[in-house]
Amino acid sequence: MKAEIIAVGTELLLGQIVNTNAQYLSRELASMGIDVYYQTVVGDNMERLKEALRLSSGRADIVLLSGGLGPTQDDLTKDALASYMNRSLHIDRMAMDRVERFFHDRGSVMTENNRRQALAIEGGTPLPNETGLAVGNAISFEGTHYIVLPGPPKELIPMFEQEAKPWLLQHVLTGELPIYSKMLKFAGIGESALDQRLEDLITAQTDPTIALYAKEGEVTVRISTKAASESEAMVRLNELETRIQERGPEFMYANEDVPIEKVIVDLMADRSWTLSAAESCTGGLVAEALTSIPGSASMFLGGIICYTNQIKEKLVHIPHALLEGDDAPGAVSAEVAEALADHVRMVTDSDFGLSVTGVAGPGYAERKPVGLVYIGLSERGKETEVHELHLQGNRETIRLRATKALLYRLWQRLVASKQA
Amino acid sequence: MKAEIIAVGTELLLGQIVNTNAQYLSRELASMGIDVYYQTVVGDNMERLKEALRLSSGRADIVLLSGGLGPTQDDLTKDALASYMNRSLHIDRMAMDRVERFFHDRGSVMTENNRRQALAIEGGTPLPNETGLAVGNAISFEGTHYIVLPGPPKELIPMFEQEAKPWLLQHVLTGELPIYSKMLKFAGIGESALDQRLEDLITAQTDPTIALYAKEGEVTVRISTKAASESEAMVRLNELETRIQERGPEFMYANEDVPIEKVIVDLMADRSWTLSAAESCTGGLVAEALTSIPGSASMFLGGIICYTNQIKEKLVHIPHALLEGDDAPGAVSAEVAEALADHVRMVTDSDFGLSVTGVAGPGYAERKPVGLVYIGLSERGKETEVHELHLQGNRETIRLRATKALLYRLWQRLVASKQA
Repeated sequence: MKAEIIAVGTELLLGQIVNTNAQYLSRELASMGIDVYYQTVVGDNMERLKEALRLSSGRADIVLLSGGLGPTQDDLTKDALASYMNRSLHIDRMAMDRVERFFHDRGSVMTENNRRQALAIEGGTPLPNETGLAVGNAISFEGTHYIVLPGPPKELIPMFEQEAKPWLLQHVLTGELPIYSKMLKFAGIGESALDQRLEDLITAQTDPTIALYAKEGEVTVRISTKAASESEAMVRLNELETRIQERGPEFMYANEDVPIEKVIVDLMADRSWTLSAAESCTGGLVAEALTSIPGSASMFLGGIICYTNQIKEKLVHIPHALLEGDDAPGAVSAEVAEALADHVRMVTDSDFGLSVTGVAGPGYAERKPVGLVYIGLSERGKETEVHELHLQGNRETIRLRATKALLYRLWQRLVASKQA
Repeated sequence: MKAEIIAVGTELLLGQIVNTNAQYLSRELASMGIDVYYQTVVGDNMERLKEALRLSSGRADIVLLSGGLGPTQDDLTKDALASYMNRSLHIDRMAMDRVERFFHDRGSVMTENNRRQALAIEGGTPLPNETGLAVGNAISFEGTHYIVLPGPPKELIPMFEQEAKPWLLQHVLTGELPIYSKMLKFAGIGESALDQRLEDLITAQTDPTIALYAKEGEVTVRISTKAASESEAMVRLNELETRIQERGPEFMYANEDVPIEKVIVDLMADRSWTLSAAESCTGGLVAEALTSIPGSASMFLGGIICYTNQIKEKLVHIPHALLEGDDAPGAVSAEVAEALADHVRMVTDSDFGLSVTGVAGPGYAERKPVGLVYIGLSERGKETEVHELHLQGNRETIRLRATKALLYRLWQRLVASKQA
């Protein structure tokens, strides 16, 4: 079953709003096992709208239209669809009652153009709008099924959920198998390196299917299958998950769609472990990532952003001799990363201490190159580990990559310590 | 001049990501006076991608493609375009050097598939990628101009701005009057409130045009005009800027597209003022925003993320009696916000001290409601100001809004102190 989404609205083509409806509808259709082949955005223009309908009818079984149901002359979606099908429009009595009641309740006069919001296409099923005034429509024509939805997400989402989805399940999807997915999350490995490790599995994929996506230092592998029941799907998905995990067990940190900091917070809360961080070049990014997770208050005690040498000395007790002087390694060094991680752990009396110090740029510091970063990880009673990173990118990218690298090392350490 | 935007990626059709690139590119094209008639999304599929190219070529003068330039077998955009034009692909030497250097600098082995990221189409202009590895392309064929851009916004935006836009201006838009814009930036006021203050100007707009965009606690007002010369444009834009600024001088912090933290860093550097921050519920967001600005090292001395009461006592010297006990105001209180701002300023010996303490949720703390936040601002030799905020939204939104509110107050204070 192939579907296409057509969003109608010049405000989308001007870039005034982002097309979140297409994302919502795509995700919903995917979860129903319907493949979306195209998303299209077209303006409030009768000819181009009818052209988009003509095209979509030739290539899709289901066409979802969003937007263009309002009261103004610009709102053309139902007119265009009716004209395309050579059908007439009529006032839907229930929808009209709702429009009239709305104006009556507010004590205001309904202008004539508001009647347009109650228009329905001859032979179709009106879809009531619980959160707005414009009625939706569901209608089949020449083998293609059309669903007409309002543009505002707070109207579109409830109408899809309560009206359009049940209509599709009852009239169109009888007998189709639902689709089930699992998201496998990787860190510490790039998209292309993971792609190569999985190359034979990806090439041979039929069912389940495998897809890779990279985002901000994490790679997501989505595996999907159509099945009659969840348990049947899970047998296939779990079997493939195991084969994928074997290709890089040291990189796969979750089998659900969560960031690595969520896994870290859960692992630490589970053991009542506590954490602190001393950050120089990341300026709070590490703390911010961890504290973005609800429940982090139980494990993240606090952090020190020691941007200057004075603060490194005063708040994290880094010896002056390490920071300044001809023979000093300097603030951007393995020695200072180690001391920062150890000292922030001791100052806050936490089980684990993290540190980052480096040159985020633009411009070098201490005659050290942009992208040189040291990360430290201290654990009570264990040896402190320090890693030297050479990162590419601009200031923002270097700070983000340093943060992700540190969180990845922490996750690895927590897994090892948990097993110990 | 008609344009069409084609975003390539199955992750868009599955609804895993929202198509923000289409919004960005539509807005940029509109600002250049180019009409976007269609946005299309198509999956990583050779046949459908070529079909989308065939369609767009028939109806657009300019086609912008985004996504599908990565190293994996799914990344087909350049292959499809080259095949559509019957042209070959070759390795762009500069792009290949960049890919090789990337792996060399990391001390890792480049896998063979990464060569794909350096592919360019015969006869086209390679567009360098300053923030990533995949090279872009600009190429004209049978009267249509194609621009190929990478999918990640942090690569697409700089490449459009620095490479594609100049190419379009030079090769395609010759003879058109150039468009000049100014961005007026507002903080501390919502989009709809600002919209109302500017209502008569917006209604009467012909030339220059006025457009409002809201994003993360800031509102941008973009004013644009077409003119034969920059000086002619600036006369019109500056006149309108003055009229707009008069509607809310206490909210307009810049007349160029910069975040408020950039204005803060510049103002402080100019006076050699220094700053520190003690953050509880924002967990590093304030420090992160400030340190994201190059040059912030000269004014931001450091920060303390005091997530627990123990850390508030130990590192910021908040009296135990303020934090705990039956009569204590508690960590989320005006008293603690004031003490945090004062003490972090004294501990770090900075001119200004900032503080945030509140309930970001989910779930209340100290029997105080989610969204209750206190922000403090301490200045050497002046009275400390504290504001009580009642913020709406989820954890992420509350943290972000608290950060923006504090930065807005700091900017106001700096402007006042500068004039004093």
